[in-house]
Amino acid sequence: MEKNRLEAFSDGVLAIIITIMVLELKVPSGAGLQALKPMAPVFLSYLLSFIYVGIYWNNHHHLFQSTRRVTGGILWANLNLLFWLSLFPFATAWVGGNHLAPIPTALYGGVLLLAAMAYYLLQSRIIAQQGPNSLLAAAVGRDLKGKVSLALYLISIAAACWHPWIATTLHVTVACIWLVPDRRIERALHHRQES
Amino acid sequence: MEKNRLEAFSDGVLAIIITIMVLELKVPSGAGLQALKPMAPVFLSYLLSFIYVGIYWNNHHHLFQSTRRVTGGILWANLNLLFWLSLFPFATAWVGGNHLAPIPTALYGGVLLLAAMAYYLLQSRIIAQQGPNSLLAAAVGRDLKGKVSLALYLISIAAACWHPWIATTLHVTVACIWLVPDRRIERALHHRQES
Amino acid sequence: MEKNRLEAFSDGVLAIIITIMVLELKVPSGAGLQALKPMAPVFLSYLLSFIYVGIYWNNHHHLFQSTRRVTGGILWANLNLLFWLSLFPFATAWVGGNHLAPIPTALYGGVLLLAAMAYYLLQSRIIAQQGPNSLLAAAVGRDLKGKVSLALYLISIAAACWHPWIATTLHVTVACIWLVPDRRIERALHHRQES
Amino acid sequence: MEKNRLEAFSDGVLAIIITIMVLELKVPSGAGLQALKPMAPVFLSYLLSFIYVGIYWNNHHHLFQSTRRVTGGILWANLNLLFWLSLFPFATAWVGGNHLAPIPTALYGGVLLLAAMAYYLLQSRIIAQQGPNSLLAAAVGRDLKGKVSLALYLISIAAACWHPWIATTLHVTVACIWLVPDRRIERALHHRQES
Repeated sequence: MEKNRLEAFSDGVLAIIITIMVLELKVPSGAGLQALKPMAPVFLSYLLSFIYVGIYWNNHHHLFQSTRRVTGGILWANLNLLFWLSLFPFATAWVGGNHLAPIPTALYGGVLLLAAMAYYLLQSRIIAQQGPNSLLAAAVGRDLKGKVSLALYLISIAAACWHPWIATTLHVTVACIWLVPDRRIERALHHRQES
Repeated sequence: MEKNRLEAFSDGVLAIIITIMVLELKVPSGAGLQALKPMAPVFLSYLLSFIYVGIYWNNHHHLFQSTRRVTGGILWANLNLLFWLSLFPFATAWVGGNHLAPIPTALYGGVLLLAAMAYYLLQSRIIAQQGPNSLLAAAVGRDLKGKVSLALYLISIAAACWHPWIATTLHVTVACIWLVPDRRIERALHHRQES
Repeated sequence: MEKNRLEAFSDGVLAIIITIMVLELKVPSGAGLQALKPMAPVFLSYLLSFIYVGIYWNNHHHLFQSTRRVTGGILWANLNLLFWLSLFPFATAWVGGNHLAPIPTALYGGVLLLAAMAYYLLQSRIIAQQGPNSLLAAAVGRDLKGKVSLALYLISIAAACWHPWIATTLHVTVACIWLVPDRRIERALHHRQES
Repeated sequence: MEKNRLEAFSDGVLAIIITIMVLELKVPSGAGLQALKPMAPVFLSYLLSFIYVGIYWNNHHHLFQSTRRVTGGILWANLNLLFWLSLFPFATAWVGGNHLAPIPTALYGGVLLLAAMAYYLLQSRIIAQQGPNSLLAAAVGRDLKGKVSLALYLISIAAACWHPWIATTLHVTVACIWLVPDRRIERALHHRQES
């Protein structure tokens, strides 16, 4: 029961984050096509962030699918993740409004990195509670995907200061890696049920 | 269980979309009746979009009523639909603030079209998973309503560039077509229970 | 099940309405006490609207407590109610920002009236579906409270044009009448369980 | 069932409060690091308020864990708590935008105090309904933590007018006291199940 309320609260926060980002798409003053043109980078950064929040919602869901009891530590690790995700609207609007300028792009990478680290922490907390033989531990394994993502975010922050386009390409690449829903947990779950 | 969380998340996003649109009703600076007058088109476009989101919520609900398992494909098709619906506040504010100017009206039609296509995709995904003999497949049938809507949206985009009022009339017409809740699924469900 | 999702969606919309009203409390530019002073009417109108939305949430809850099946008619009557409630933030901000000017006060009364009428319609729809011997019909009875409220709202709109303070006093009075949670349904429910 | 809907509504309001605070992090006009610098106090006050809302959500959750029936009094005591919490975004933005000026800091302390008093009232209402031998009454005990917090908030308001930094230190201190999730209820619950 406690888990349900944590999931409902997280769903609420994620639903609001994913939706209020659209408030940064300020209505242009003109009514012509040329008024829409400067909005292209804002729109594209909104699209990328929408996909990222979608990925987090999806993975969050898989994470708690195998969780039964929620401890105080898990609860605060979850709030920590939600905090960094709540900075997405700000980072998205700043990077979108500045046509891939170095510092905003680096900050966007930084928010992605901190959210990923918070996710990793939350995952570790849940595994620690469930023990090394748990379903989640088996599903995550060595967590190559998670570690590669952290590395790419780090590189993107460094790259942003010189070639922001490289950083943006890396952000899109990591999104593509995760766009495929994390089947590891589902597969492990399925596997266990058979045996 | 997975389905419940997808429904809860979608409900959250739809509830936020339908409500933040009202933030575009900017409080007028004056306190007289004449201050309200220029708000009429903004108000009417808000009303139309409110009805549209209501229709989508209603149909979304019917769509998942007959769904049991949620696959990764359905999950992303659902997020795709939510993305296009999340652009309603922006499109509504732009068209409302420009008294039916051609480009904003065409963009509004475009967002309606893309949301409708996303809905069609989601419906197809669910039917594909459930098989051609499923309840949903029987209820949707040849999906005349869906196909006519797509055609009318397309015409509205073309019409908007010359006579925006024709486009707006088409948008209102499609809303009226769908305002009647989609009884096909309920009827099919009822039919099957009897036999 | 259908009812649960309607309740969840309504709860979401009401939670957002009650919370985004606070966004109209614009942060003052100064940092002194005198910067807070002009905010008093905005704050008081926020407080009144908060109580009103609280009352609607409370009564909405009682309304659906005795409801089992949700028809298309009930669903749209519910969306109609949510639409008028969604105008509360706009009306609240306008009346609060204009120190009880006649037209904004009349509009606030008008939104209260239309929301009350929508509530009455929703209640009638549910009773019509459940039959005249239903629990809800017995609990509502002649609905004196509802009818008196409608009358007071009507008077408040007329009064607002001459003496806005009378209108505001009426709005506060009706809130006080309803602040007492609607025990009629609970009592009727309790009564039936005994017999 | 009634309790579930109260929890869902409260979760929704808390999720929105915790997320719309981020809208006060206005996107800076420049794209350099120096544009971020003046945002530091806004960011830190957002962080503190995020933690506070997280603590309230956490404790709210524990409060209702041991509650079965929701009376009208509990319902309105809960709405009273949500009202004061809804003022967090306003108070946070004002204190953050004024670099710890006396009046905004005092107001922030005042909102914290009123929210804490509302929480105390809600807790008392629930205990009053459950009786002095209830689980919650045993868990709360003499409620030292709650009383110390109220005292520290009071001191912080007085201190803010002379040395705002002392007030802010007190606000951080109380947050630290509560950051440890309230294990009293869990422990009492666990204890009772054993005996």
